[in-house]
Amino acid sequence: MVPLDDRGRIHEDELRRYVDWLVERGVHGLYPNGSTGEFVRFSPSERRRIIEIVCQQAAGRVPVLAGAAEANVRETIEACETYAGFGARAVAIVSPFYYKLSPESVYAYFREIARHSPIDVTLYNIPMFASPIDVPTIKRLAEFERIVGIKDSSGDLAFMMRLIAAVRPMRPDFAFLTGWEAVLVPMLLVGCDGGTHATSGVVPELTRKLFDLTQAGRIDEAMKLQYRLLELFDAMVYSADFPEGFRAAVELRGFHLGQSRQPLSESQRIDRAALSRLLQCILADFGYVEAPKEGCPPRTGNLSQDRINQIAATVIQTLRERGL
Amino acid sequence: MVPLDDRGRIHEDELRRYVDWLVERGVHGLYPNGSTGEFVRFSPSERRRIIEIVCQQAAGRVPVLAGAAEANVRETIEACETYAGFGARAVAIVSPFYYKLSPESVYAYFREIARHSPIDVTLYNIPMFASPIDVPTIKRLAEFERIVGIKDSSGDLAFMMRLIAAVRPMRPDFAFLTGWEAVLVPMLLVGCDGGTHATSGVVPELTRKLFDLTQAGRIDEAMKLQYRLLELFDAMVYSADFPEGFRAAVELRGFHLGQSRQPLSESQRIDRAALSRLLQCILADFGYVEAPKEGCPPRTGNLSQDRINQIAATVIQTLRERGL
Amino acid sequence: MVPLDDRGRIHEDELRRYVDWLVERGVHGLYPNGSTGEFVRFSPSERRRIIEIVCQQAAGRVPVLAGAAEANVRETIEACETYAGFGARAVAIVSPFYYKLSPESVYAYFREIARHSPIDVTLYNIPMFASPIDVPTIKRLAEFERIVGIKDSSGDLAFMMRLIAAVRPMRPDFAFLTGWEAVLVPMLLVGCDGGTHATSGVVPELTRKLFDLTQAGRIDEAMKLQYRLLELFDAMVYSADFPEGFRAAVELRGFHLGQSRQPLSESQRIDRAALSRLLQCILADFGYVEAPKEGCPPRTGNLSQDRINQIAATVIQTLRERGL
Amino acid sequence: MVPLDDRGRIHEDELRRYVDWLVERGVHGLYPNGSTGEFVRFSPSERRRIIEIVCQQAAGRVPVLAGAAEANVRETIEACETYAGFGARAVAIVSPFYYKLSPESVYAYFREIARHSPIDVTLYNIPMFASPIDVPTIKRLAEFERIVGIKDSSGDLAFMMRLIAAVRPMRPDFAFLTGWEAVLVPMLLVGCDGGTHATSGVVPELTRKLFDLTQAGRIDEAMKLQYRLLELFDAMVYSADFPEGFRAAVELRGFHLGQSRQPLSESQRIDRAALSRLLQCILADFGYVEAPKEGCPPRTGNLSQDRINQIAATVIQTLRERGL
Repeated sequence: MVPLDDRGRIHEDELRRYVDWLVERGVHGLYPNGSTGEFVRFSPSERRRIIEIVCQQAAGRVPVLAGAAEANVRETIEACETYAGFGARAVAIVSPFYYKLSPESVYAYFREIARHSPIDVTLYNIPMFASPIDVPTIKRLAEFERIVGIKDSSGDLAFMMRLIAAVRPMRPDFAFLTGWEAVLVPMLLVGCDGGTHATSGVVPELTRKLFDLTQAGRIDEAMKLQYRLLELFDAMVYSADFPEGFRAAVELRGFHLGQSRQPLSESQRIDRAALSRLLQCILADFGYVEAPKEGCPPRTGNLSQDRINQIAATVIQTLRERGL
Repeated sequence: MVPLDDRGRIHEDELRRYVDWLVERGVHGLYPNGSTGEFVRFSPSERRRIIEIVCQQAAGRVPVLAGAAEANVRETIEACETYAGFGARAVAIVSPFYYKLSPESVYAYFREIARHSPIDVTLYNIPMFASPIDVPTIKRLAEFERIVGIKDSSGDLAFMMRLIAAVRPMRPDFAFLTGWEAVLVPMLLVGCDGGTHATSGVVPELTRKLFDLTQAGRIDEAMKLQYRLLELFDAMVYSADFPEGFRAAVELRGFHLGQSRQPLSESQRIDRAALSRLLQCILADFGYVEAPKEGCPPRTGNLSQDRINQIAATVIQTLRERGL
Repeated sequence: MVPLDDRGRIHEDELRRYVDWLVERGVHGLYPNGSTGEFVRFSPSERRRIIEIVCQQAAGRVPVLAGAAEANVRETIEACETYAGFGARAVAIVSPFYYKLSPESVYAYFREIARHSPIDVTLYNIPMFASPIDVPTIKRLAEFERIVGIKDSSGDLAFMMRLIAAVRPMRPDFAFLTGWEAVLVPMLLVGCDGGTHATSGVVPELTRKLFDLTQAGRIDEAMKLQYRLLELFDAMVYSADFPEGFRAAVELRGFHLGQSRQPLSESQRIDRAALSRLLQCILADFGYVEAPKEGCPPRTGNLSQDRINQIAATVIQTLRERGL
Repeated sequence: MVPLDDRGRIHEDELRRYVDWLVERGVHGLYPNGSTGEFVRFSPSERRRIIEIVCQQAAGRVPVLAGAAEANVRETIEACETYAGFGARAVAIVSPFYYKLSPESVYAYFREIARHSPIDVTLYNIPMFASPIDVPTIKRLAEFERIVGIKDSSGDLAFMMRLIAAVRPMRPDFAFLTGWEAVLVPMLLVGCDGGTHATSGVVPELTRKLFDLTQAGRIDEAMKLQYRLLELFDAMVYSADFPEGFRAAVELRGFHLGQSRQPLSESQRIDRAALSRLLQCILADFGYVEAPKEGCPPRTGNLSQDRINQIAATVIQTLRERGL
């Protein structure tokens, strides 16, 4: 995530402080200009500046996977060249978005990049936002040495297994990373190499611990933490438009992210304040932050959407009866 | 729609009275055992009885299009035979549902029926509930003389045009009926022969008038009525699980439909009562029923879902702050 | 799956032989009248007969979970009564289908059943075919003692975790069963109690072994088998309209299932024969059947859909150029 | 659409020639930087240059509706300012894309723009590519004078009617434009003011004629042309990834569009050549271009997708049997 200053510009000092904090808490790498980083809401020159800062500040302590998607193939390749110069370890490139492209087009797009990029390329599959990259296409793309891995945010465990089954035999070095930390431990158990997650930007200690426990075969402990991470994840993902919930959580960890570039309405500001209180309670349970002074209500899971609808229905009925 | 008595059985007298009422108000035909008729909620023998009653009561005044879908091809063909015997003019058969079948399977299913049915068959395409029947499949099926038409409830005007363009040249007699009365007039203008609609069971005078005006080339008048029908339609479709809104409206026209076979929860009963008041107001504007004594609030369109969410959010926030 | 005889009727002897075979190979229970059992393609009396036979033949060796969904609540409850009399251990009831019902309606439906069923009820969530049952609704339904578990065929691991997190604290006895064996081992690892699977009707030895290995903490072995099961599963699920691929596989295991009640077109018969050869090769690798005499080609994963499209495009282009 | 030169840059002379051609053939206005114009595949400075050229070349003969969506609200507002300076009549702004935003966020986004734009704003709803803008949100936004209309590419006639019913009473000046020319005539008949269409960039004479005939009440003639337009439209939309089919057609009209910025694979080049021949045949029927020398096969509608699958299945089976 990219902190913004009072005038909505990249807050460089805070971004550097955030990079240090993440590295110190044990992340294995950094992925700027991803979906959580709101790459589409920055200009091309801002995107370059973000990568430059992160590479400088990481200073080789951890590798940087630089989000490099630009408006078209030529500009994406130029970004690859620039990020190679900045010292990024590899780039991650999201499948073309806006238009919904066929597998053939997705293949042609990445093939062109694979042929010209001076830096290793990770595919980024996020079917809820961009054209899906299917298993046969990934298999065809894995024939290019420049393509070294995939980040998959579909959250579909069977899809990941199909992918590993199809690609690993021909490319034992190919990296499989999940972007769906809700099921990180199961993903690792089926053979994923790791994850690049929004949640790692919020509780890097926790996701690192999940990884280490799973690697050590301490599945039961890992799974218990996975359940607790899921509660946090759901609160961040489903209580606000992505990635506002993650931004709210990072602020609780002590960073000034500033106003989002996507404006909030009045009712959204109210919701965000309520979400912030809830997140503080969840994070306090982990010991990452203080609990709110006013205390935390017992968390009995999500208030049922049905109950919400029922409440709303009653209110609306009353309003209607009064002639609204 | 099928009236039920106090014990949840088919209320035969009321069904006969309803048939008379519809015929007297000008419907060109009757379509029992359709989606609005909740055919899936009746047993095979009840479905037969419904067709029998409707055929008897129609008594040749208007043709009966009998919904004949049963659990499998063999039983569907047996129903076709039975309904031929009852004097139905044709049967309508919905595409296989529950499983989502491929076009090839849909084709094989209807081909089998086309080969053995002793009565003309109308295809029924309702992709929101059943396996879709695509244009190439319909074209292939139109090669069978027994298949004489299609009822399409997709509501997609371009789909209907593609269908007419593909089939009419080879089968000038093939009937194209729309099941999406929200756009009945435009459907007729692109060449549809007519409609078989839920709304015709509620305001048969109105849909008949729409048809007649359009046939007469009085497009402006037709379109004004179409807009008013749309308000009624939206209220019936979107304010309750289908087809409960239509059942509520038919009761306002003076029929006792009884308790639905799909049970309602407490909050749904409240919603249904509110919907009933709204429908009474809309129907009163047409002059079909009396306005409610307590009067009708100005109808400024749907209360915005956003506003609803806002209201709900405020209520919920309050509840949360109180420790719920 | 239900064997049919030459005239399309239930082949009772073969069904009894199949039940014995399954029990002998170690299944923990039987689930007739499920989706794989094509319950919607049988008449109400056939569905009763199927349960009767299975209960008789199981003869208490393993519990029977009887699919009891009928056309409406009243008839479903009557089926529950009948199946209790047959000695079923519990019933499984799929969420209402055809219409897409709201959570409130799904709740009202199951509540009615919970109040009147004389036998324990398992919810059956299969959102690709029927109205989804969401977590809050399941939580509300878990307040009824009669509702003792859920079979979830969504295949979404995070959904299963949310469900367990929401319900297990209040109902430690509630059973969580997955219907998506593609990820059976991960499901068991997050706390699922077991599975009720189509694949268990084909290779009961294999799914039992997966279960036992996972219970024993031999995760690596379990996962290797899980990958092999996935290849079989994908072939059965994606090479024909469900559940025809499973029927083809059971025939390879030595049972005469007869013609499906859903007719096949000529091209589908060809596809099914090709699928059967492929399945024979996969099953032969496990040692369950002999390999085909003509030998098995190396299986390099699925032939890419892109390649298929390419091949098709070339063929079609040629046809077009010849004036077709 | 924006012509590109041999090096992939904006081909300014050809773009000017294209603008002249469109104006001379009777378009009522120009909409650069729309979806068909591939705005997302150009850089911010290229997008500005495109608007500048089009405004200059239009030279007041027809109004320019300038696509102004940029990476975030601030940059979008800056583009509005620039385009006002270029002499654009209004801007069109697509709903935020990539992320799927809630109605509240969509509202907050457009409200911010409405408050600061120095030029009139048209909303652009294209739910297949961007966050949908629902009726209540449009109604709320219509309270801002700066927002003067909507382009809706949903193709849903009932949606357009709901929109007109909700907004026209409060804002009689609000413009309703459809982006789904497959049903242009019906859209005009329900009260749409006009359309902004991809197809108008290919056959401006035709879409203009459709408009004029409908305005003149010559519905039958308009509808016949609408059917012919549909055949052309379907060929352009469904035979290649959007908007490549439209680019192929514009080239047939005599413009050099150059290589698309989205690369094509080998099989796509073959498909595009086949599509080009088909389009030439369709355009020749209208008299817009010469028929291909090798002649046109009878067009019996689309080759059935089922037949395609059948052909492909046979080919694949053969390949499999040969050990592929």
